[in-house]
Amino acid sequence: MRDVMERIDQQMNESFSLLQEFCRLPSVSAQGTAIEQTAEFIAGELRKLEFETQIIPKRAGGQPVVYAYHPGVVDRTILLYGHYDVQPAEPLDLWSTPPFEPALVGDRLYGRGISDNKGNIIARIAAIRAWKETRGELPCAVKFCLEGDEEIGSPQMEPFVEEHRDLLTADACLWEGGDITWEGRPQVTLGVKGLLYVELAVKTIARDAHSSWATTLPNAAWRLVWALNSIKSPDESILVDGFFDDVRAPTPEELAAIAAMPSDESETLASYEIGEFLCGVRGADFRSRHLLEPTASVDGLLSGYTGAGPKTVLPAEAMAKMDFRLVPAQDPDDIFAKLRAHLDRHGFSDVALRKLSSEHAARTAPTHPFVSVVTEATREVYGKEPVVIPSMAGTGPLHPFMATLGLPTADCGVGYPDNRIHAPDENIRTDDFRNGVKAIAALLEKFAAWPG
Amino acid sequence: MRDVMERIDQQMNESFSLLQEFCRLPSVSAQGTAIEQTAEFIAGELRKLEFETQIIPKRAGGQPVVYAYHPGVVDRTILLYGHYDVQPAEPLDLWSTPPFEPALVGDRLYGRGISDNKGNIIARIAAIRAWKETRGELPCAVKFCLEGDEEIGSPQMEPFVEEHRDLLTADACLWEGGDITWEGRPQVTLGVKGLLYVELAVKTIARDAHSSWATTLPNAAWRLVWALNSIKSPDESILVDGFFDDVRAPTPEELAAIAAMPSDESETLASYEIGEFLCGVRGADFRSRHLLEPTASVDGLLSGYTGAGPKTVLPAEAMAKMDFRLVPAQDPDDIFAKLRAHLDRHGFSDVALRKLSSEHAARTAPTHPFVSVVTEATREVYGKEPVVIPSMAGTGPLHPFMATLGLPTADCGVGYPDNRIHAPDENIRTDDFRNGVKAIAALLEKFAAWPG
Repeated sequence: MRDVMERIDQQMNESFSLLQEFCRLPSVSAQGTAIEQTAEFIAGELRKLEFETQIIPKRAGGQPVVYAYHPGVVDRTILLYGHYDVQPAEPLDLWSTPPFEPALVGDRLYGRGISDNKGNIIARIAAIRAWKETRGELPCAVKFCLEGDEEIGSPQMEPFVEEHRDLLTADACLWEGGDITWEGRPQVTLGVKGLLYVELAVKTIARDAHSSWATTLPNAAWRLVWALNSIKSPDESILVDGFFDDVRAPTPEELAAIAAMPSDESETLASYEIGEFLCGVRGADFRSRHLLEPTASVDGLLSGYTGAGPKTVLPAEAMAKMDFRLVPAQDPDDIFAKLRAHLDRHGFSDVALRKLSSEHAARTAPTHPFVSVVTEATREVYGKEPVVIPSMAGTGPLHPFMATLGLPTADCGVGYPDNRIHAPDENIRTDDFRNGVKAIAALLEKFAAWPG
Repeated sequence: MRDVMERIDQQMNESFSLLQEFCRLPSVSAQGTAIEQTAEFIAGELRKLEFETQIIPKRAGGQPVVYAYHPGVVDRTILLYGHYDVQPAEPLDLWSTPPFEPALVGDRLYGRGISDNKGNIIARIAAIRAWKETRGELPCAVKFCLEGDEEIGSPQMEPFVEEHRDLLTADACLWEGGDITWEGRPQVTLGVKGLLYVELAVKTIARDAHSSWATTLPNAAWRLVWALNSIKSPDESILVDGFFDDVRAPTPEELAAIAAMPSDESETLASYEIGEFLCGVRGADFRSRHLLEPTASVDGLLSGYTGAGPKTVLPAEAMAKMDFRLVPAQDPDDIFAKLRAHLDRHGFSDVALRKLSSEHAARTAPTHPFVSVVTEATREVYGKEPVVIPSMAGTGPLHPFMATLGLPTADCGVGYPDNRIHAPDENIRTDDFRNGVKAIAALLEKFAAWPG
């Protein structure tokens, strides 16, 4: 398939331009901006490649899904999952270039969503275009399923998959993206964590008071601090009663994959300018903790006066955002109920709790044959041994694709460890993008020939 | 002195207009707005009343002090302390009327600073004008000392008083303002608490991270929560090591004054829409806790993402503002050192601590003869028995006036319990303003005749 690969090289400038155009659309799902426009944009690109394309609303609410289908030489279908929404760009002052004006600086292309997930969507489109233009056909059937609100927790994706299970029928699912290691080895990831995202809110008195009332009036900021302190202790122990009840232990195959993974800890430590990880973990302990264990994390805090100078005020209200990354078989709704009960039991029934999003964890077994298809394709393109990762540390709506559609799931993509997704200066490197396109091209060929 | 009182009544509309003009100047010291303009404004009003007026810079930094002197029939001088700066108006959306456009609604005049402290400054000017216009002279000598940064902790007031001790020589000091009770009894307050205002800041990693890193990267919001939790416990105990070492016990006279005070707890509870005070205190226990005990209070919290929707971010930075109200003989610098040592000892040396302002506590003895001058004047005007309060719950730079100038200090003013100082909808009632002016007029006469 040298012809396809050469075509990819020839089209690289065009592919970069398309990616930049895509990233200029500020499709921030948390803020509801440019969502429809972005869905139309990407649906239009798929129509140009002769995909049968639909923009399908989620019946129960949420942003529309871009669905597209193209037949292949063999009657085997790969479903490409992705999302056209991005995280908020704030804090804006920490960006080196404007987040929605993609800019090439050296070998890095900067912009919100350039890695997560727009770079991967364009890489897949570029691979398909190269196939079409050189061969006039695709080796296997391809379906796209592109969400518009993955970054706010994919609301209603489970019922959407349930409702459209016939449309989404496939033989395997390629997940949204993936990274290479600092050493350039492609990573193939087989699962996601679940998520429970909540907002905690306290109101203690009718309005803010002069802080001299700290003697006798309840301070919302203190109530929030104490409630949060009851959830996790300074030694990083999660204290929510029953939190670990349903955690299933890692399988021997998962632990073997963890053990076989290379270490890239030093680069991560250097990148964040710290000397060690929490609890001093390193090596397989670090990877096992990072990929296979649940978390409890504060995402935001707000109360009282936060401007310049000293304002002596006793805050009536305080707010925290928190997320819990979950593992199989923790159920987000169950964890939410346990958190509520925990707060009540520890004297914090005055702390209101609101669920903002939730997802289930899911993992494909490292021994599944589809995993070999992806590792073979990436091994060929990158010339290095792929790293199989039993689960990412992050979250995605993988659960219905595995549980409802019964699809094995793996990924590969254009990212690298310093791509800064969800943070200022999100970026990809140009060579990683090129290899990412080629890996998809190779994967389509190997998938078509898959004996599984 | 019926002539003076009638003059006050005749001039009331003019006095209100002057107060509104004064409150239109947004002299927010924390934000550094309109300070010079406001100093010029009030100096101009004093010059109109034939005061020898100077605007004197604080040599070591801080906003200028408006000083003014007018001789009297007798060679006895009362020093009127006040401040022409105000608290920030935020949160703006909770105001019923714009904070810097004073508005009369029913019998209440709303605006930032209308009570604290501009209403009291204008009340004193109105009383003096009435004396001048009816008698052509003042019964005693009067000095004004008006600060421009009281609301950010009166920086450099101690060295200012030291440097200008000859200029500020007097026989007694009337403090900035005062309230009446819900029953209409004038309150005469004899002291202030001290203050230590600090900012706590944590930075854990080079930049914000994707929240999936909660497994292994340190979260600044958690560090801040745990550090704060080490400072005060949910039972309201202040845990800073050595915090209470220098607290002197209340005197029998102070406790007698506390016992003699009426209760206005129900109105306060209703105003803040709560059922009880912290620790369930009521009566003399409530008053003793509120007026004679030190505090530790969170004034503001900020970390991570606080906008709409769920952003999954692990914050690199977190910030809290805190104030500690101190009592005799706690020293703010000593408390700051103890707080630093406490954080270090409890494992929070990563939490940076910055002092934003500090003041010493001070109290005049309830048995001092000057206290009788103020209680007699207010008893006459309000027709009700004054309430003597050994200390306010709040803070002011009273310490150098007592310690350096050796002045007994008391107060009376235009406020009432729902005046909402430092909060949205700060207001005064028109009748309270009128009585406040008359009380100053009576006080000048009694002070001139004071045998002490």
